[in-house]
Amino acid sequence: MSVNFNIAPVDNALAAGLQNKIDQKTKPLGSLGQLETLAFRIGLIQNNLLPQLNKPSILIFAGDHGIAASGVSAYPQSVTAQMLANFLTGGAAVNVFAKQNGLDLVIVDAGVNADLASHPNLIAAKIAKGTQNYLHASAMTITQCNQAIDTGASLVLQQHQAGCDCIGFGEMGIGNTSSAALLMHCLTQIPLEHCVGRGTGLNDQQLQQKVSLLQLALQKHPASDDPIQSLCTFGGFEIAMMVGAYLKAAELGMVIMVDGFIACSALLIAAALYPAVLDYCIFSHVSDEQGHRALLAEFSAKPLLDLQLRLGEGSGIALAYPLLTAAVNFLNTMASFTEAGVDNKTTD
Amino acid sequence: MSVNFNIAPVDNALAAGLQNKIDQKTKPLGSLGQLETLAFRIGLIQNNLLPQLNKPSILIFAGDHGIAASGVSAYPQSVTAQMLANFLTGGAAVNVFAKQNGLDLVIVDAGVNADLASHPNLIAAKIAKGTQNYLHASAMTITQCNQAIDTGASLVLQQHQAGCDCIGFGEMGIGNTSSAALLMHCLTQIPLEHCVGRGTGLNDQQLQQKVSLLQLALQKHPASDDPIQSLCTFGGFEIAMMVGAYLKAAELGMVIMVDGFIACSALLIAAALYPAVLDYCIFSHVSDEQGHRALLAEFSAKPLLDLQLRLGEGSGIALAYPLLTAAVNFLNTMASFTEAGVDNKTTD
Repeated sequence: MSVNFNIAPVDNALAAGLQNKIDQKTKPLGSLGQLETLAFRIGLIQNNLLPQLNKPSILIFAGDHGIAASGVSAYPQSVTAQMLANFLTGGAAVNVFAKQNGLDLVIVDAGVNADLASHPNLIAAKIAKGTQNYLHASAMTITQCNQAIDTGASLVLQQHQAGCDCIGFGEMGIGNTSSAALLMHCLTQIPLEHCVGRGTGLNDQQLQQKVSLLQLALQKHPASDDPIQSLCTFGGFEIAMMVGAYLKAAELGMVIMVDGFIACSALLIAAALYPAVLDYCIFSHVSDEQGHRALLAEFSAKPLLDLQLRLGEGSGIALAYPLLTAAVNFLNTMASFTEAGVDNKTTD
Repeated sequence: MSVNFNIAPVDNALAAGLQNKIDQKTKPLGSLGQLETLAFRIGLIQNNLLPQLNKPSILIFAGDHGIAASGVSAYPQSVTAQMLANFLTGGAAVNVFAKQNGLDLVIVDAGVNADLASHPNLIAAKIAKGTQNYLHASAMTITQCNQAIDTGASLVLQQHQAGCDCIGFGEMGIGNTSSAALLMHCLTQIPLEHCVGRGTGLNDQQLQQKVSLLQLALQKHPASDDPIQSLCTFGGFEIAMMVGAYLKAAELGMVIMVDGFIACSALLIAAALYPAVLDYCIFSHVSDEQGHRALLAEFSAKPLLDLQLRLGEGSGIALAYPLLTAAVNFLNTMASFTEAGVDNKTTD
């Protein structure tokens, strides 16, 4: 198969050195909490006592979903292409936050159901004009799935070659919380109704309808917990590209920033194929979408932010990024007890 | 008395206009979660649909505590003066985070138990060389308390006159979680053992000793829930200065960023005097110090970060500040549905 990556677990050689460096900083032991864990993790990923984050970037993959025609979203499918245009002109939330915090954005047409005008900042990588509706057929063929994974991987490689060592993945696609919920259910066996959420803002009745439709979709296909099989049946092109992107980023030893529910469903596929991908992941936030908290628990992940976001786009990554910078900065520039002439703990 | 401020509740005139502006942005309704609440609050405080954060700054008040001699901290009292020197040379955590995120730092000697060399960035406002040990006497006199409150207020006024409209307060003082716990107990009647925490990192036995000492301190003084009386009995000079600083900042209509446990104990005093001060407050984080979560609940506060910090210094403010910027930026620069030509919600 085309899914062929070489992902080494993160080397723990510097673990003691990093912890000692953190503990010698002028602060009570452990008092920077999760920021210490973060600095430690980034140091391990880069295998460096002086880690640096260079050219941080977010790839946003946009794709449409056949299921959207069956009424699983509060917004029409046209919004996917419109929001992609909004990303290109800088008007979306992720644009605002990425610009503020110094992250590059790369916009990818993974499979939007529209003919998009070419644009200098748009990567045209359309697999097809949206997936098939999985109420009637498999969302994509294995050939399409492999093509999407390869594309995701190759886009990450380009970023890496341009000097980026810290990358995250966002998405846009009306209907894609449905895909994500189905993938979560298939790979974790968590009951579907706990995986399905309100997406862009369904009311109670609409949510119930979404659960029923997705139950029906499950019954249309042979049950499987195979990651690639599940991805073909229920995935989106943007999700498949993210799978390849995660795996390539891990292979290249990059710091990977993980966004919300859909981003995590793609990571679930990636981690089922190569568990070591998780060694490279920083979880930016827990979203308000039902299912995300349980999905994070599958990764034993402790996200940085809990702001009840449910927007996708990589917006959680863009907002959390200053905390990554802060972790690296305190590790590299804060004074030690010795350097500052501050007395260390007297007791214990 | 000298505690005489004129604090108006925040005007709600723009509430509907702000909410409408937020709802018209190209995102599902409510999908920016707590960031929307934050943008709304800042807009109300500034009574402006286009709020701006100018010259954000943190005043760090340092003071020593007589109780430190009785063994309530894991670190010796000398650390207060040493850390103040560390702030001045830029080596502490708050220096690193404030520099990264563009906040000014102002270092104030509120009552450090040492003769400090003058320094261009040090504000010498020492009330005394540390408070009295409240196991034996009131921590400060009413005259000292008023002087500290006036000093805090006057330093905030100086910042405001220099163009700052967004301010937060940090502290340094070995022993000051003990003061904060006692103030919390006196003003909330929450049992003392729920207010006392490990501070800079006490072990179980040391924590038990701290609780016992503070129980003893309570018995030495007449029970009182009067805020100024409690502040005189158990406070620190840095805490009293923070009280004046909060009140002046609210009087001036500034956006107030609230740090951790000790900062919140000072806010508790300020809010007991003038409840409207809370209208101006943004809570930056919930810390790992026992008592802070319950104290935040007293304010019905929903903090932005939960990173298990327990450092003080204003470090939580410096870390949370990019979220305030993000809230203002999305409100001011994100495209609306109309501007971007994106279809709005179809159902519900």
